[in-house]
Amino acid sequence: MNHPISRFPVPSLKEMPDDIRTRIEQVQAKAGFIPNVFLALAHRPDEFRAFFAYHDALMEKAGGLTKAEREMIVVATSSANQCHYCVIAHGAILRVRAKNPLIADQVAVNYRKADITPRQKAMLEFALKVAVTPNVIGEQEIEALTLHGFGQEDVWDIAAIAAFFAMSNRLANVSDMRPNDEFYLLGRG
Amino acid sequence: MNHPISRFPVPSLKEMPDDIRTRIEQVQAKAGFIPNVFLALAHRPDEFRAFFAYHDALMEKAGGLTKAEREMIVVATSSANQCHYCVIAHGAILRVRAKNPLIADQVAVNYRKADITPRQKAMLEFALKVAVTPNVIGEQEIEALTLHGFGQEDVWDIAAIAAFFAMSNRLANVSDMRPNDEFYLLGRG
Amino acid sequence: MNHPISRFPVPSLKEMPDDIRTRIEQVQAKAGFIPNVFLALAHRPDEFRAFFAYHDALMEKAGGLTKAEREMIVVATSSANQCHYCVIAHGAILRVRAKNPLIADQVAVNYRKADITPRQKAMLEFALKVAVTPNVIGEQEIEALTLHGFGQEDVWDIAAIAAFFAMSNRLANVSDMRPNDEFYLLGRG
Amino acid sequence: MNHPISRFPVPSLKEMPDDIRTRIEQVQAKAGFIPNVFLALAHRPDEFRAFFAYHDALMEKAGGLTKAEREMIVVATSSANQCHYCVIAHGAILRVRAKNPLIADQVAVNYRKADITPRQKAMLEFALKVAVTPNVIGEQEIEALTLHGFGQEDVWDIAAIAAFFAMSNRLANVSDMRPNDEFYLLGRG
Amino acid sequence: MNHPISRFPVPSLKEMPDDIRTRIEQVQAKAGFIPNVFLALAHRPDEFRAFFAYHDALMEKAGGLTKAEREMIVVATSSANQCHYCVIAHGAILRVRAKNPLIADQVAVNYRKADITPRQKAMLEFALKVAVTPNVIGEQEIEALTLHGFGQEDVWDIAAIAAFFAMSNRLANVSDMRPNDEFYLLGRG
Amino acid sequence: MNHPISRFPVPSLKEMPDDIRTRIEQVQAKAGFIPNVFLALAHRPDEFRAFFAYHDALMEKAGGLTKAEREMIVVATSSANQCHYCVIAHGAILRVRAKNPLIADQVAVNYRKADITPRQKAMLEFALKVAVTPNVIGEQEIEALTLHGFGQEDVWDIAAIAAFFAMSNRLANVSDMRPNDEFYLLGRG
Repeated sequence: MNHPISRFPVPSLKEMPDDIRTRIEQVQAKAGFIPNVFLALAHRPDEFRAFFAYHDALMEKAGGLTKAEREMIVVATSSANQCHYCVIAHGAILRVRAKNPLIADQVAVNYRKADITPRQKAMLEFALKVAVTPNVIGEQEIEALTLHGFGQEDVWDIAAIAAFFAMSNRLANVSDMRPNDEFYLLGRG
Repeated sequence: MNHPISRFPVPSLKEMPDDIRTRIEQVQAKAGFIPNVFLALAHRPDEFRAFFAYHDALMEKAGGLTKAEREMIVVATSSANQCHYCVIAHGAILRVRAKNPLIADQVAVNYRKADITPRQKAMLEFALKVAVTPNVIGEQEIEALTLHGFGQEDVWDIAAIAAFFAMSNRLANVSDMRPNDEFYLLGRG
Repeated sequence: MNHPISRFPVPSLKEMPDDIRTRIEQVQAKAGFIPNVFLALAHRPDEFRAFFAYHDALMEKAGGLTKAEREMIVVATSSANQCHYCVIAHGAILRVRAKNPLIADQVAVNYRKADITPRQKAMLEFALKVAVTPNVIGEQEIEALTLHGFGQEDVWDIAAIAAFFAMSNRLANVSDMRPNDEFYLLGRG
Repeated sequence: MNHPISRFPVPSLKEMPDDIRTRIEQVQAKAGFIPNVFLALAHRPDEFRAFFAYHDALMEKAGGLTKAEREMIVVATSSANQCHYCVIAHGAILRVRAKNPLIADQVAVNYRKADITPRQKAMLEFALKVAVTPNVIGEQEIEALTLHGFGQEDVWDIAAIAAFFAMSNRLANVSDMRPNDEFYLLGRG
Repeated sequence: MNHPISRFPVPSLKEMPDDIRTRIEQVQAKAGFIPNVFLALAHRPDEFRAFFAYHDALMEKAGGLTKAEREMIVVATSSANQCHYCVIAHGAILRVRAKNPLIADQVAVNYRKADITPRQKAMLEFALKVAVTPNVIGEQEIEALTLHGFGQEDVWDIAAIAAFFAMSNRLANVSDMRPNDEFYLLGRG
Repeated sequence: MNHPISRFPVPSLKEMPDDIRTRIEQVQAKAGFIPNVFLALAHRPDEFRAFFAYHDALMEKAGGLTKAEREMIVVATSSANQCHYCVIAHGAILRVRAKNPLIADQVAVNYRKADITPRQKAMLEFALKVAVTPNVIGEQEIEALTLHGFGQEDVWDIAAIAAFFAMSNRLANVSDMRPNDEFYLLGRG
């Protein structure tokens, strides 16, 4: 009954351009498996390259947010968009990065009740507005972040991560992208 | 940073009426721990008794739905209500009853993309209408179930389970009821 | 053109288990007629028993809310769920308990404009959040009640009544439960 | 605790221009009391004149809809807008015109469950789309009416009545217009 | 591919009653073309007369709002209702009255980001509540206007204009009323 | 009263990395002015590069959609997100590419009433689901496109454009990005 990785064609590794295959092999070496998003997006090499360049620019950079906090934003906003791939795959990454086996499910179900700090709740409240009602964001929402010590670059980061996954959730939902079975258990130990 | 079991007072086992303490000790003997919903609702013994009598009448009865399917209804509708306790605790029960480590997260995030049968998707589509827009349910929605082989008693069961957890989700959300840590990992093996 | 009491089978009084028939006869003796909810739910005796045990535990108990206020919660939240049976039957009970022929229609249409106290408006604002957006309830909503003098047990009562009728409204909507004609005029005199 | 007729100033009869006072006295002679909408809108004589000219053009004209059906549209759409004045005043008129003491409450709570014909349900389904999501109306919605025998002029009538009360509900909600106590009981006998 | 002026019959000028034809000829003389709303509504002469009497009473009167501000209310609320005719025709009038070629598009897309004063934003925030959630308006919303210097008569004006165009937007959406091509470029110079 | 290009710092051309400055100078040479999105995003060079690489991969490629149709998707979905920059800037591009001075305003206000083909309406209906309710997209939505002759690669294109501008709209809304005055009039002639 399991559905395939994507509704769209998925190229084999050897059909892929060299740079894409190399990137995927590096991920595989590190993670022990190939996350399906790499395979599904390889259908469109130029979009693949831009997608992961953008992803890395937002998720791997230094700054005021920890890597775990960045993943919290992904999990909370992806849950609002009911995106299988992102909630389950990034839930795993969040558990690993936060070294906390409970946090991903808590943030996915309802961040308001999660065991996180008031500052992190303010961050997620803002991120969810970016995800769900971006049209209403104004000075008031920025100030609510400032009160918790977030600076201008942090505001950009939170907004840009929520925005990038607004795109990513839509690609995954339309392509019916399937998360790898490995993600479900990762970081729960 | 972990919040307590409930926003309201939680009685100790020995403060509880005998019948309630006995019920709880039986659950503990079977599960290996006391699910927090029993402790949180013991604050109101009469409501506790009615709640679990109702719960058992719906979840433990024979009928056209399997026990795993009943739990799917709980997980899908509780996720729509963003209820920590019910998604996480009943997610565990669903994994155990379906003997499937992936299904609970799939149903919680987006049942439309879960590895379940078309009949089960129709069941959850109906259950979510009961949960979210009960005012619009009419002949058309009943017929959609009939087409998948559900009989009149099944319709009642699906509706009553969704309705009971509409209540349960609200009690858990207002009381800020905390799922036991044990639930997160249960049935994932 | 009148539709029947319920979409599901309705047992005759003599088909019912003794305890259920007895309870119904007592209600009939007091009210002068049998409210249809008793007949409709008798289709499932165990659920009937749990339902009314729960109902009585919430609606007949002593506490900080008057019986009329409890009925206001029922009418306001049932109207949000567009539940025929509950708005019309409990509207009648509200008129009787409040000794006020206008109040039920006012609360059903828009509690914000009803002739009730600011404290009662705060109670209904909270009850409607429980009914409609239970996921957002947190400290802030509890404090808004505290400012109007509601204590911890009152908060539980308001939430539990709104939650119980969240269930009841869904059962009545799915079963297409018909309010007795008697309710429409009751308490209007 | 009763609030006044309107949040805005209400002129006395003798302060009013002659034509407005005359119109009001005629209504009073016929109804036995002055419906508050006449007093509240007299604050702006030009708007008063246009409002009632429009109202009469839509509600008193001949055509494919009965007068009771026109009032059903008013009650159903005004309930969606939670408008005290219109639901309660036009509920009374609907009871009188339909010679049916139950129908107004049924239509106000949930027209889908009311004792009305399938044709009338189609009419109200369309009227509620006009009231709530006018942006989506297209050929498909018009055809659904045609299937029930409504002609082009009927479509205009249904839409125009729903549109006029979209305005009226907003005026009444902002001015906090109070329905006369007389309306609550009218036509219930 | 261009659709006609209206889904309903449109009378020729000489079929129209004299007063309506005269009014239309006056508008044509002034504007250089006949705005389609006049032709479309002429299908129903009594409604035509009431509509324009009401329109003029609200849009041409003196008071605390400038004519450009009245048009801002029309554009912002008509955009929320996705009304072609009103956004495009009144967008043109707004550009002309404000002598500002950018303002209409800004207000139509998102008034929160438009180059208007805080007082005008408060006016539009209120107008949009009247348009979209009239049921929640109470003292708090009125006070928000008072803080920006709006008086009681201004509150009525804002509400009445938003209410009138709630009606107008619905008529235009159902009749599929087509804005004249002339409006698109008017006032952009 | 005009607000600045962005809420965040905007680098001068000479502060920018060479590749970014070069790209911007090329755009300026072609368009006659620098669209503000280039200046605003230059605050983050890596994100700038990924953003425009992604944009070009979707908007400049060959395929089953015309360039004007791609811009229709941008305008319709950006209007749903109330994004000033995207509606106004891409509205201009749409007018130019479609050689049609009316189409952008029509699509922005309500695509259902625009002078476009049924195939284009189906495309925009799908794009708006991707933008607004991506969680519900399944076989049924794909088939609706297939019926209008869209192939698998077209489905990806529509979805990816709607997804990319879901991101872009959020970045522009949070940064309060200001469209250049030049866009308002472009292509209207």
